[in-house]
Amino acid sequence: MRTIKLVLEYDGTDFAGWQFQTNGRSVQGVLEAALSSLLQEPIRVTGSGRTDAGVHARGQVCHFSTGNAMEARSLCRGVNAVLPDDVVARWAEDVAQDFHARYSARLRSYRYHISQTPVAMFRRYRWFVGQQLDIEAMRRCANALIGERDFQAFCKADTAVKHFRCTVTTAEWSKDNEDLVFLISANRFLYGMVRALVGTMVDVGRGHITEKVFLEVMSSKDRTRASSSAPASGLVLESVYYDEGT
Amino acid sequence: MRTIKLVLEYDGTDFAGWQFQTNGRSVQGVLEAALSSLLQEPIRVTGSGRTDAGVHARGQVCHFSTGNAMEARSLCRGVNAVLPDDVVARWAEDVAQDFHARYSARLRSYRYHISQTPVAMFRRYRWFVGQQLDIEAMRRCANALIGERDFQAFCKADTAVKHFRCTVTTAEWSKDNEDLVFLISANRFLYGMVRALVGTMVDVGRGHITEKVFLEVMSSKDRTRASSSAPASGLVLESVYYDEGT
Repeated sequence: MRTIKLVLEYDGTDFAGWQFQTNGRSVQGVLEAALSSLLQEPIRVTGSGRTDAGVHARGQVCHFSTGNAMEARSLCRGVNAVLPDDVVARWAEDVAQDFHARYSARLRSYRYHISQTPVAMFRRYRWFVGQQLDIEAMRRCANALIGERDFQAFCKADTAVKHFRCTVTTAEWSKDNEDLVFLISANRFLYGMVRALVGTMVDVGRGHITEKVFLEVMSSKDRTRASSSAPASGLVLESVYYDEGT
Repeated sequence: MRTIKLVLEYDGTDFAGWQFQTNGRSVQGVLEAALSSLLQEPIRVTGSGRTDAGVHARGQVCHFSTGNAMEARSLCRGVNAVLPDDVVARWAEDVAQDFHARYSARLRSYRYHISQTPVAMFRRYRWFVGQQLDIEAMRRCANALIGERDFQAFCKADTAVKHFRCTVTTAEWSKDNEDLVFLISANRFLYGMVRALVGTMVDVGRGHITEKVFLEVMSSKDRTRASSSAPASGLVLESVYYDEGT
């Protein structure tokens, strides 16, 4: 048996999320069906983590085992011929047997895109916020996320994790013409974390809450104090990083 | 009666094109319905030109007359509240009575986007071409378009125009990461012209035809000699330019 690492891009709009569901179209479901059909054996994939309904990925990573000897490049091309057009395999390679898409991951990066003007093209990949936002205030909030922090206040309640600490290495707002883009990298992300953070920072940018309140929400560890989550459409899982050689 | 100039963005994917049709969803049709509902009078709009089914716009321009006194900014915001989410009014302003979106236009710019890797996100706005393309050869072809040229060979046959000469001021291929982007500006465009040009230049880039053949096709004025048109999805009407003050 070989272990294959697969890098995926998908448009999350028409998916109920990454994870397999008995009712609902999942990325994992269509990918497993495509790989099983291509490799002529039942394939189960393990992702680096879940993405919610409507969330996109440019660099989701998963792994699977197969007895099929098909060369990795051919496998990548072959599965693209079978996949629906909102999922694309960008890269496939043989990796060590003990490679695990979730447990071997060192860093994950997400990008959130806000449009400050109404948008027709690309609207599947944006959150339109009409009010002018105070990007400097939002940047100061983002700076406060750097380091090892407890994100319980920005985590959906029904999570099964043991603790809520994440080590954030990048958290920055930048301008892209008239749009605002938030980039965040961390060793791990909790369920709903990026969208809760973006929603709350945008409330600071709008002047609905102060930076001081943002910091208080963070230290309260109380999800009911964070703002509404930003919509899924603006969020993209950009990359998952592994140690050299994987 | 006032004359209003409106700048529009639209995602062409789910439209049968710009022009009103009795059967089929057109941008003109949904825009006229939205404006008529907002302004409480029947509105007919005149566009700077047609776009085909599936072709997008970032800066389509149209004009219309109305007796309604609603301020232009409110009109822009109001029509966006009524329009479906694949059409957005970016800007509205009062212009001189004799302003004409089509006849007053001096220059139009189109952008064509080719992805060299399979694409899931943004696939509505790309043409995926898997083969490596010789961008230098395509650039030399683009250079040959600059100036006043006859584009009959790159124009769909059923056109009603009197002549096929267009003055091209910009025609350039650039790289956008792994993608290729073609930008072309001219005083006028013939029906299907950009997609026929892109399709034929890509055939040069693939090595299917030589640059010499490209020039021969151009001077032949024979549409049957040009290559297949590039798909509508990659094409965006970027801007329409008018004289100062309009």
